[in-house]
Amino acid sequence: MIIILRSGVSEEQIQHVVEHVEELGLRAHLSRGTYRTIIGVIGDESKIPIEPLRAITGVAEVVPVLPAYKLASLEAHPQPSIISVGNVKIGGGHLGMIAGPCAVEEPERMREIAKAVRAAGANIFRGGAFKPRTSPYAFQGLGEEGLKILRAVGDEFGMPIVTEVMDPRRVEMVAEYADMMQIGARNMQNFTLLTEVGQAGRPVLLKRGMAASIEDLLMSAEYVLSQGNPNVVLCERGIRGFDKATRNLYDVAAVPLVKTLSHLPIIVDPSHATGRPDLIPACALAGLAAGADGVHIEVHNCPEKAKSDGPQALLPEQYAELMVQLRKIAEVVGKQWD
Amino acid sequence: MIIILRSGVSEEQIQHVVEHVEELGLRAHLSRGTYRTIIGVIGDESKIPIEPLRAITGVAEVVPVLPAYKLASLEAHPQPSIISVGNVKIGGGHLGMIAGPCAVEEPERMREIAKAVRAAGANIFRGGAFKPRTSPYAFQGLGEEGLKILRAVGDEFGMPIVTEVMDPRRVEMVAEYADMMQIGARNMQNFTLLTEVGQAGRPVLLKRGMAASIEDLLMSAEYVLSQGNPNVVLCERGIRGFDKATRNLYDVAAVPLVKTLSHLPIIVDPSHATGRPDLIPACALAGLAAGADGVHIEVHNCPEKAKSDGPQALLPEQYAELMVQLRKIAEVVGKQWD
Amino acid sequence: MIIILRSGVSEEQIQHVVEHVEELGLRAHLSRGTYRTIIGVIGDESKIPIEPLRAITGVAEVVPVLPAYKLASLEAHPQPSIISVGNVKIGGGHLGMIAGPCAVEEPERMREIAKAVRAAGANIFRGGAFKPRTSPYAFQGLGEEGLKILRAVGDEFGMPIVTEVMDPRRVEMVAEYADMMQIGARNMQNFTLLTEVGQAGRPVLLKRGMAASIEDLLMSAEYVLSQGNPNVVLCERGIRGFDKATRNLYDVAAVPLVKTLSHLPIIVDPSHATGRPDLIPACALAGLAAGADGVHIEVHNCPEKAKSDGPQALLPEQYAELMVQLRKIAEVVGKQWD
Amino acid sequence: MIIILRSGVSEEQIQHVVEHVEELGLRAHLSRGTYRTIIGVIGDESKIPIEPLRAITGVAEVVPVLPAYKLASLEAHPQPSIISVGNVKIGGGHLGMIAGPCAVEEPERMREIAKAVRAAGANIFRGGAFKPRTSPYAFQGLGEEGLKILRAVGDEFGMPIVTEVMDPRRVEMVAEYADMMQIGARNMQNFTLLTEVGQAGRPVLLKRGMAASIEDLLMSAEYVLSQGNPNVVLCERGIRGFDKATRNLYDVAAVPLVKTLSHLPIIVDPSHATGRPDLIPACALAGLAAGADGVHIEVHNCPEKAKSDGPQALLPEQYAELMVQLRKIAEVVGKQWD
Repeated sequence: MIIILRSGVSEEQIQHVVEHVEELGLRAHLSRGTYRTIIGVIGDESKIPIEPLRAITGVAEVVPVLPAYKLASLEAHPQPSIISVGNVKIGGGHLGMIAGPCAVEEPERMREIAKAVRAAGANIFRGGAFKPRTSPYAFQGLGEEGLKILRAVGDEFGMPIVTEVMDPRRVEMVAEYADMMQIGARNMQNFTLLTEVGQAGRPVLLKRGMAASIEDLLMSAEYVLSQGNPNVVLCERGIRGFDKATRNLYDVAAVPLVKTLSHLPIIVDPSHATGRPDLIPACALAGLAAGADGVHIEVHNCPEKAKSDGPQALLPEQYAELMVQLRKIAEVVGKQWD
Repeated sequence: MIIILRSGVSEEQIQHVVEHVEELGLRAHLSRGTYRTIIGVIGDESKIPIEPLRAITGVAEVVPVLPAYKLASLEAHPQPSIISVGNVKIGGGHLGMIAGPCAVEEPERMREIAKAVRAAGANIFRGGAFKPRTSPYAFQGLGEEGLKILRAVGDEFGMPIVTEVMDPRRVEMVAEYADMMQIGARNMQNFTLLTEVGQAGRPVLLKRGMAASIEDLLMSAEYVLSQGNPNVVLCERGIRGFDKATRNLYDVAAVPLVKTLSHLPIIVDPSHATGRPDLIPACALAGLAAGADGVHIEVHNCPEKAKSDGPQALLPEQYAELMVQLRKIAEVVGKQWD
Repeated sequence: MIIILRSGVSEEQIQHVVEHVEELGLRAHLSRGTYRTIIGVIGDESKIPIEPLRAITGVAEVVPVLPAYKLASLEAHPQPSIISVGNVKIGGGHLGMIAGPCAVEEPERMREIAKAVRAAGANIFRGGAFKPRTSPYAFQGLGEEGLKILRAVGDEFGMPIVTEVMDPRRVEMVAEYADMMQIGARNMQNFTLLTEVGQAGRPVLLKRGMAASIEDLLMSAEYVLSQGNPNVVLCERGIRGFDKATRNLYDVAAVPLVKTLSHLPIIVDPSHATGRPDLIPACALAGLAAGADGVHIEVHNCPEKAKSDGPQALLPEQYAELMVQLRKIAEVVGKQWD
Repeated sequence: MIIILRSGVSEEQIQHVVEHVEELGLRAHLSRGTYRTIIGVIGDESKIPIEPLRAITGVAEVVPVLPAYKLASLEAHPQPSIISVGNVKIGGGHLGMIAGPCAVEEPERMREIAKAVRAAGANIFRGGAFKPRTSPYAFQGLGEEGLKILRAVGDEFGMPIVTEVMDPRRVEMVAEYADMMQIGARNMQNFTLLTEVGQAGRPVLLKRGMAASIEDLLMSAEYVLSQGNPNVVLCERGIRGFDKATRNLYDVAAVPLVKTLSHLPIIVDPSHATGRPDLIPACALAGLAAGADGVHIEVHNCPEKAKSDGPQALLPEQYAELMVQLRKIAEVVGKQWD
């Protein structure tokens, strides 16, 4: 950690900072520059809370040299993690190809969609039983009934299932049905929920929040990991941008960036990132080419009847066509799925 | 609602949209332009889910003419709401001047801070017993013990108290101690929590999320209102920006913008918005001048010992000095507090 | 064009808007809804300036149905444009693979870099003779001397050259040396310069501004096109984002989005978009997979001696390795270069 | 300057960096931490180009401790600058109250508007003769004819005039007519133009670009200052934001932030920042309360006939009403204008 002092700081103030550092059992190493004095902190930086340092008079800036996340860092685990979701592997060359409707709907429609995406090559089935809706008047999901439908359909077509959990009081119930639990973008910093899923013993699909930096995302993953659950898959699903031509701004560089910082797999969700079926295929291909460990796509066989987010779903035949291209890209980058 | 069709749409497709609208009990009014056909929807627009319309082939855009929030809108309640927090009023010319440390700490320190901010004119005392921290390793708050301290100190100095609630399972407990419950920025779209505080019968301080538009903020308020709790105070506390010179980007125009859309009071929080004590006073004055119904400021008597967010707190004497200026601005804009 | 009136608008105000529309030789078509009245404007919308309409009392919103750019639109030219730069084609399945150092430097270094990128498969050589630098004290480029070096090196290795022009007074001079003229991100809305290059008879590489929407970008292209120069290649090079881990935010979805709106080719520049050599290869592959018509990459054989932007350049051997992968992706998406 | 090395860097690499620093005539001071080695650079940091340092293998980060702008910094000039525009002073307690239409129009209308804003207390008159328009088909301004009208009207009502210059070839001509030259937001990093106005001997009103950080803005001011022209007034006019309810995002905290970094005056422009007359008054009051050195407002007596930006103009009577409130705020913050 480096502490940069303000210009014109007094000897007393410098001494005060040095003492503060030494009280914490670390060593302070002074560099007196022409314009500024700098203190290099030597020792286990993780012992020092940064904020109080910043609040000391005379301190201009505090620059940490280690990331604040530990278990999620590449230093802690230099090999890519491989996460198992049912019989499917994600990470380390294995791709998780997640598909399904936004919300769980009637069993018959679910069976049709599952059959189609399975045939196209999807290996994990998705659907929301509890939906985070901006409007309190919008369809909120089928609840436990939806979980049952999803489980049955997943079993019938041999696909593990992933579904969102929003309420810490329902984590246990969702964990009974689902092979993987999704934390949505709006709950990425719902620390209560993160702690709860960290204890539930199911792999977690953690979606990036709309205003979250990659460091924020990894800190949220750290919440889950620090509870003893090492099975976290990250997901880039678009952040807030200024151009309203797309629903969100697809940050594909997040994929290689995560690879330089963490061992956790990261997949992409071009459905939410763009909100436009005409842009989804190109963005899916881009994500895989950039090194993603999987692709999450919403598929519905009748978008105008979908109970949620119909306009951003691909039709089953569009999905099948895209999957042919995705296989070719996977081959180029040396990955595969089954 | 207006439905704009794509150029080159077929007669059949137009007919399909018209039928879709009429099935919902509304009337469709066609304007065939030179380049595009437009359908004006006549009747109660709130009956139509927009998303399925957008998913119909041939539909280019759907433009709603009414806001999606109802209870929070100015149409529903044309006079400004006045919210009572203990004996303090917020809205309609009454200012809520909230001050206190980021986190609840030892009783003696709390008493000192409360005494100082009370003397400076603050009328509501704040402090976090449950802290949303980006790091799982950071101080997470004193929990119920903190609530007790806050309650005792508020009572001693005659100030109602506001404190954050993060877990739906603890809403009831927090409601026993607090006069007002805060929903933090990271939980603004935690719909489970919003629903719960909507049923708890305590006024709510709803902070704007870092990526939330004003419409998003009002939709979240609608969640609380739709549960039968009309007592919501909004709070602008900065959104994500690209300039890292400040912690967040203080969107002061949110204040007059809310006034054109909603009857709910809105206060400003320059402490979180800027994260810099040297910018807080100017931004507090700006907020009040822009028409805010109150100012929320973090105050600590020893920032370098603060358990959380010390660097963004004002010292009690800085706060007192600022309050003198705030009173003058309040007078200019015809508002007051006591 | 659709004009949405405010609720509670008077008959007189409606009549005033109708007259305003009819004075312009168009027809107004009224839809009186339950809550709002809407006016559909029928006729050539491009004749109506939108702003004065918005300023009329009683007008809530004006929604255009046609894009404001004409020549750049897909409606005007439904087939993809193919732009010739020297003997290289960009667009319609042909890829422009642009490489070279940020700034033109000594002839010997330029020759080495050109030789290396040519061998790796680059087909256009780049280098800046006039550099837009945020600091007035930074290296500003070699000027005309640089243009001569670039021209000679391009000729020696059989590659057309592209270089930036910043000053309308130098457009003519730059056009004498260069095969393609680049408009940098900071000048994307320098309308004086756009008009000038529109008259210079050389293909233009137009980089997206850091705060520009895709509509803004196409409007700037329209400036060039409207001067009679149809040869514009767009370039996505990153926009301003909140995560400082990368220099800019790479908006790869801009590529398929442009394809839905315009016939102009669009290439990607992952060097400026990320500012980090470790992220450039992944982002280059992503761009091509998303449908880009080319890739622009900065290459330098000794980044620590580079006169500008060294840290974001690839080494020639890294570039060669990347080009092998890019060829494979090009094959998957059915494109090629030579 | 501080150079942070990557973990696992070799002794040779450390030595290479040290030598690089010493070759530049500076001293390198090593701190070997438990996890990282840090090099403090002692001496005149402005001699070191940062980019080549970042490009050296083994360098993780370079943290400058001095701002890159010199003449614009508070260190260079600790007292607030007072800029004279004709007989009006801006800065150091003096407020520049700029008003007028977006574009220069017919003389009679200009006289009416000037008379009204003068009566309301404005002390500088504005109007654009050259207009930067996103569309090549929109009204581009009256050119030199407009400058003549503006000059005549300014003289008649005893107000200095400010007008935008876009083309470096016209700087001289504009300088003949105008008392102050405006650089628009889209040209904030048009370095050719900045250099030219730096040599023209007229005060400059420099508007912040839509994606510019405050450091970027000060670097652009430095371009003008470094040409020998010390008379720069900065202007906050809104940056790009994600909420389309306002045209731009008004960053009022920029005002106190500039005051901590620079001696240059900064005014606010709530007209462009919000694009909505109903929000302008509140944002103008907020700007002055935050410490701005003036307020720039567009005023038009018939917005629906305005040739440019009518919808964001205040009517003369609205402006007069606002000015009464602005005077009261000015008094509270101890400033004045005449």
